[in-house]
Amino acid sequence: MLLADLETPALVLDRPRVLHNLARMRDRLAALGVPLRPHVKTAKSADLVRLAVDGQPGGITVSTLKEAEHFLAHGFVDILYAVGVAPGKLAHVADLRRRGADVAIVLDSLAAADAVAGRAEALGARFPVLIEVDTDGGRAGVRPDDRCLVEIGRRLDAAAGTALRGVMTHAGRSYECRSPEALRAMAEQERAGAVAAAEALRAAGLPAPVVSVGSTPTALFAERLNGVTEVRAGVYMFMDLVMEGLGVCTEDEIALSVLATVIGHRRDLGTILLDAGGLALSKDAGRGGGYGRLVDAVTSAPLGLVVASVNQEHGLVPAADADFARLPIGTQVRILPNHACMTAAAHERYHVVDGGEAVAAVWERCNFW
Amino acid sequence: MLLADLETPALVLDRPRVLHNLARMRDRLAALGVPLRPHVKTAKSADLVRLAVDGQPGGITVSTLKEAEHFLAHGFVDILYAVGVAPGKLAHVADLRRRGADVAIVLDSLAAADAVAGRAEALGARFPVLIEVDTDGGRAGVRPDDRCLVEIGRRLDAAAGTALRGVMTHAGRSYECRSPEALRAMAEQERAGAVAAAEALRAAGLPAPVVSVGSTPTALFAERLNGVTEVRAGVYMFMDLVMEGLGVCTEDEIALSVLATVIGHRRDLGTILLDAGGLALSKDAGRGGGYGRLVDAVTSAPLGLVVASVNQEHGLVPAADADFARLPIGTQVRILPNHACMTAAAHERYHVVDGGEAVAAVWERCNFW
Repeated sequence: MLLADLETPALVLDRPRVLHNLARMRDRLAALGVPLRPHVKTAKSADLVRLAVDGQPGGITVSTLKEAEHFLAHGFVDILYAVGVAPGKLAHVADLRRRGADVAIVLDSLAAADAVAGRAEALGARFPVLIEVDTDGGRAGVRPDDRCLVEIGRRLDAAAGTALRGVMTHAGRSYECRSPEALRAMAEQERAGAVAAAEALRAAGLPAPVVSVGSTPTALFAERLNGVTEVRAGVYMFMDLVMEGLGVCTEDEIALSVLATVIGHRRDLGTILLDAGGLALSKDAGRGGGYGRLVDAVTSAPLGLVVASVNQEHGLVPAADADFARLPIGTQVRILPNHACMTAAAHERYHVVDGGEAVAAVWERCNFW
Repeated sequence: MLLADLETPALVLDRPRVLHNLARMRDRLAALGVPLRPHVKTAKSADLVRLAVDGQPGGITVSTLKEAEHFLAHGFVDILYAVGVAPGKLAHVADLRRRGADVAIVLDSLAAADAVAGRAEALGARFPVLIEVDTDGGRAGVRPDDRCLVEIGRRLDAAAGTALRGVMTHAGRSYECRSPEALRAMAEQERAGAVAAAEALRAAGLPAPVVSVGSTPTALFAERLNGVTEVRAGVYMFMDLVMEGLGVCTEDEIALSVLATVIGHRRDLGTILLDAGGLALSKDAGRGGGYGRLVDAVTSAPLGLVVASVNQEHGLVPAADADFARLPIGTQVRILPNHACMTAAAHERYHVVDGGEAVAAVWERCNFW
């Protein structure tokens, strides 16, 4: 099967670029002496994540219990569910654990600790828990210097239904950094905050064997990871235009794209129409506006065009006279995404290419919840 | 099953509101004497569209061939595929037609007309074609006064593999209108342009039995539809915050919502965290910014809160002291979407409620392509 045989829009994965990205992260973390627990929320594919855990302990990070189910079914058992747990999901987590998945959960408050301990008792379950630590003021977590941290640790350690396993943090604000210096500083801030939190627990006589940190930018820009026991990252497998904009990757490292077809020429409006719109690309406008950058469907050579706006199934590309001539109706192009996580989630499966036009494999994704 | 039993995020459909919205459109078009060809791109559910075609001729509009497959499998045979066709999809269209679906296609250029005629010959197929007409300068189509229109009509009429069936237009710029007057004017512009195009074809001795127009705003604000043979609309079944912002509906007519759970309290940041983020809500920021408005999970009473920002699986809700007290961790809420088409597409199925907390039915969606 060739790309030309696919009905568009379709998701394409460039395997040599994926392997390059995996090797880059693996080498970087090996140099820092810390193992990787890949975050599978971007990939959502056991076929892909098998490559990502090569040479690593084998643990993964998930953002949904649907991912946990998919990866358990494919033999992954060491699973960190890294979104603050809703008490209503604990019966499902307990069920996954009964079926052999060592699912650990995260929480960041006394209220959640008490809710989990209470539900665990009712379910006859025991949940390993990481306390989520806020190292960038961005979203969830308890601050490393908040005295509540140790109190949460004490409750988790004391309750029969919870086992304190350590701390985790995610410096999502690394996506707002604008220079290598800022990224390095954010990586150190993430590391130092997580280690400080673990040390606060240990100083109170509590266990904290796991110190888990990570985002793709901080993982790739960290200069040291002393005290960290594992790194989590997900989008590094694909990269995208947001990562390129941060200086985390170059365009030719972006492994994910959406195959689309030219379906209209509006010379009067200076617009080429594609059959990939907001559903196929996502409405994530990234940082530069627009919804993706066009490259040649086979060679991935830049075309110097962007999807400037989208409707549900239409992408609108501002174009000059020469563009209409080189991209006649029916021509396939590929679109590099702003945000790989969102774009990939719009599709059922990856069409894997080895740099050319042949579809070498088809990998299914575990979308939804 | 109750909403409280669902794992969140989950898509909820309020059936009484849907029925109200369907009746409103049906009554409006009945008063104007024009039948409805519902656009199923928002619903993507045969269970739902069966209700929408009640009392209508039964034809539907699709935006993907996946929708065509789903609806053919559920007994719908009169199908307009209303996105400019990519030549590479014609074999699939021909296959659908062989299996009993009267799929009509749309195009808007001589190049596309020639491509379709050529492919039809190669496939031994004959495709009914509507010429897409641009009545608002927004996206696709040939302008009603462009002499190219009649030329396209002549080629389609002359070719063995194409049958000219008429014209269609979609005034998508109705979404930019800011007043009832502007909406009424846009509806008339859409109608007049489509009718003018059909008359130009007829004046040249060409057939144009179908004059198809529509968008939810123009369908509901049109004051006359003389010369129009059918109206297309889709989001009217659900409504959303964009439609509310246009004055097309009120908040209590919005039938679609995302059930979510409070998973974190950041009193220090003034933020409540929900387990519905960019994937569950879409990244469509609508017109007012933010990603949706919170209502009570059971009563749909307004909570006076919005999802101000999202990450993949997190929604962040600015909150005051009293909000933390009334929305403890574990509380379910529902989120009214900015853009129903995009939000619904993030989910596999609808959980149908009849205004209360009981899930009365589960309806599957046909996502992807």
